[in-house]
Amino acid sequence: MTGRTNEAQHKTRRIPINAERLLTSMRDMAAIGATPRGGVTRLALSDEDKQSRDLFRDWLQAAGLDIRVDDLGNIYGWRAGREPDLPPVLIGSHLDSIRQGGKYDGALGTLAALECIRTLNDLDVQTRRTLGVVSFTGEEGARFEPSILGPSVLTGRFTLDYVYARTDRYSGVTLGEELERIGYKGEQANRTPKPAAFIELHIEQGPVLDREGLAIGVVEGIVGLTWLEVTLTGQADHAGPSPMAGRRDALVGASRIITAVRDMARELDPDAVATVGRLKVEPDIINVIPGQVTFGVDIRHPDEAQLVNMAETVREIVSRIAGDEKLEFDIEQVGQLDVTRFDPTLIDAVEDVTRECGFSFRRIISGAGHDSQWMARFCPTTMIFVPSKNGKSHCEEEETGESELVQGATVLANAALRLAQG
Amino acid sequence: MTGRTNEAQHKTRRIPINAERLLTSMRDMAAIGATPRGGVTRLALSDEDKQSRDLFRDWLQAAGLDIRVDDLGNIYGWRAGREPDLPPVLIGSHLDSIRQGGKYDGALGTLAALECIRTLNDLDVQTRRTLGVVSFTGEEGARFEPSILGPSVLTGRFTLDYVYARTDRYSGVTLGEELERIGYKGEQANRTPKPAAFIELHIEQGPVLDREGLAIGVVEGIVGLTWLEVTLTGQADHAGPSPMAGRRDALVGASRIITAVRDMARELDPDAVATVGRLKVEPDIINVIPGQVTFGVDIRHPDEAQLVNMAETVREIVSRIAGDEKLEFDIEQVGQLDVTRFDPTLIDAVEDVTRECGFSFRRIISGAGHDSQWMARFCPTTMIFVPSKNGKSHCEEEETGESELVQGATVLANAALRLAQG
Repeated sequence: MTGRTNEAQHKTRRIPINAERLLTSMRDMAAIGATPRGGVTRLALSDEDKQSRDLFRDWLQAAGLDIRVDDLGNIYGWRAGREPDLPPVLIGSHLDSIRQGGKYDGALGTLAALECIRTLNDLDVQTRRTLGVVSFTGEEGARFEPSILGPSVLTGRFTLDYVYARTDRYSGVTLGEELERIGYKGEQANRTPKPAAFIELHIEQGPVLDREGLAIGVVEGIVGLTWLEVTLTGQADHAGPSPMAGRRDALVGASRIITAVRDMARELDPDAVATVGRLKVEPDIINVIPGQVTFGVDIRHPDEAQLVNMAETVREIVSRIAGDEKLEFDIEQVGQLDVTRFDPTLIDAVEDVTRECGFSFRRIISGAGHDSQWMARFCPTTMIFVPSKNGKSHCEEEETGESELVQGATVLANAALRLAQG
Repeated sequence: MTGRTNEAQHKTRRIPINAERLLTSMRDMAAIGATPRGGVTRLALSDEDKQSRDLFRDWLQAAGLDIRVDDLGNIYGWRAGREPDLPPVLIGSHLDSIRQGGKYDGALGTLAALECIRTLNDLDVQTRRTLGVVSFTGEEGARFEPSILGPSVLTGRFTLDYVYARTDRYSGVTLGEELERIGYKGEQANRTPKPAAFIELHIEQGPVLDREGLAIGVVEGIVGLTWLEVTLTGQADHAGPSPMAGRRDALVGASRIITAVRDMARELDPDAVATVGRLKVEPDIINVIPGQVTFGVDIRHPDEAQLVNMAETVREIVSRIAGDEKLEFDIEQVGQLDVTRFDPTLIDAVEDVTRECGFSFRRIISGAGHDSQWMARFCPTTMIFVPSKNGKSHCEEEETGESELVQGATVLANAALRLAQG
């Protein structure tokens, strides 16, 4: 026990992380599933996801952590505290990505959590509470929908069977089968106990911090979200001999709806967003009038009442235009996340630490969903944001400056240490 | 030679086809690639196409014809005339279909041609000219684009190498490889000599005959067609934290264009049609703003000047809306078929025969492309149409009454006989 720094000192002074080590780990992780234009493709439970998990597990092991994989494939590394019966502090994020996504989305929060542990190891600090790092399964929803599956069973959002039955939209294989195939179907007993605090560092994925030249976003909550899947059914017909007058063209109907949905969000208020990102045409042949079109509508607002209002307006738009174009329609709600408010004590703690570190910051609402959204329904939770250059994310051009990555990881490490000592 | 009917009689009186035999052959052919809702899927050079070719070849053989397969996989069956050095008369169509297409599209004209031969065999009529039936390769363009490949090399439209290099849009395999795989890559020497006449019986694929209650369409020509492929490039971004104001959403741009193109055709005149049947979104994820959208525009008009005018208007629409939405754009012309005028003498002959048969008819312009479109550039050509119920085609609901199929085949057989004796 000689050489161990007196823990009282650490309550007030900041610990420095090893910037070079963090950045090297970030680069090593970004090499897995790397795309030609600087992004990554690591779809949940793909071979690339397995590679990233294996590397992360090796690093947890090298850091001397107690590694546990739960029945959803969430990977935990635990660093025992002096009082192991107290609820632990948990930090982390996810390692999966969308197709051609950014290299820091998820990876930053996961590897910064690891760097926090490595720094405590360097400094030989034993915390009062056990401190854990976590990488959650299937955050993106790009392969298995819906998104944010990792914490979903912990918080009672979904049953285990439901999550296992989620199906790859292309191959038809299930999430349960893929967990087994890549060797990451663990034990229910390995799920995290209810933490005293969960903190997730993440890129902003929006333009606010970058535009305002600020280093840190102290995140107060997450916008509410509704996903609707709209199916329009008309009549497939040969494009040549079918006069315009009698047509029931499902793609024309969809096009009018997509334009109207965009206009609605644009005109409502600056916080409102609505997007059609996914669309499928049947039969999808150049000289056949589309008989059926299916598309997803993503609606978000930080105010619950406005979110409900927007979803209602989208339904009215679909109904009106489908009627106009003589189409049948079906609207299914395929996603719903209520507005999330983070824990005020944790928000204050992050803000204090940021101020002590001397970094510029503002309070901010997240426009994107995160694992923290569901963790917030399980335990006291908050997030830390760093800037996204030009607000770009979910694309290969996603970028954050190295100094900003290090500043974010520094805030995370110091906030985690403070809470683990409390 | 005893028992042979005096040919002079056949110049003036009608021959009756065997309706039951025709309909049985139609049903047998429709069983190949049959879909649950009564259509067929026999994509060009697929296993189903091979099956349909094998069956057709067996039938040609049973009818005693001289079977030839040319280097494009077109299958001919020749019935020698008394004066084999005269240019022959050729009748036929195609056996391939789109995905979930109709059971009579192409098959009617091919099997009615066979029935004409069988009838002449029954009646033991030897014609003056050699009479041939043909099934052309790859009419639909649903697997290998462009459409109407069968006659394309005969008429100098494409080189053989170009056609062989056409690629399956899904698997990447080439047309040449698939011809070889299914055993239908024949000899260049087997291409048809220039016929005295080519006649193709086909379903109308439009609503005109059905709406007017007429049995036969005497086809005067085919509308001109332009295919444009439009690519819009914006910026993929996360749908949540990207304010509406700064977005460059390629799908919103495409949607506005699709609506504007429809409106243009609807407002121009009743002969104008324009369709977007195929559309691809990248990256096609519900919570990502589409960064790129590619779609095909099919434009048709029976008047050459109006066709040019429509294509020009589509280009203007794309340019204007792409500018509005801050998108880059690219427009490629991927198909162009000039207006086709059929041979006046053949049109008159079909009309005379129809009148002699006592069937109701009208003259009509085809809105769809056909093998006849290119045969018309090679030899005197015309077509015969039968009604499509509710104008439906290129879908499983495509339907024509049995008596109408038989009436169409009767006109074909009698017109072919008259020309083969002339």
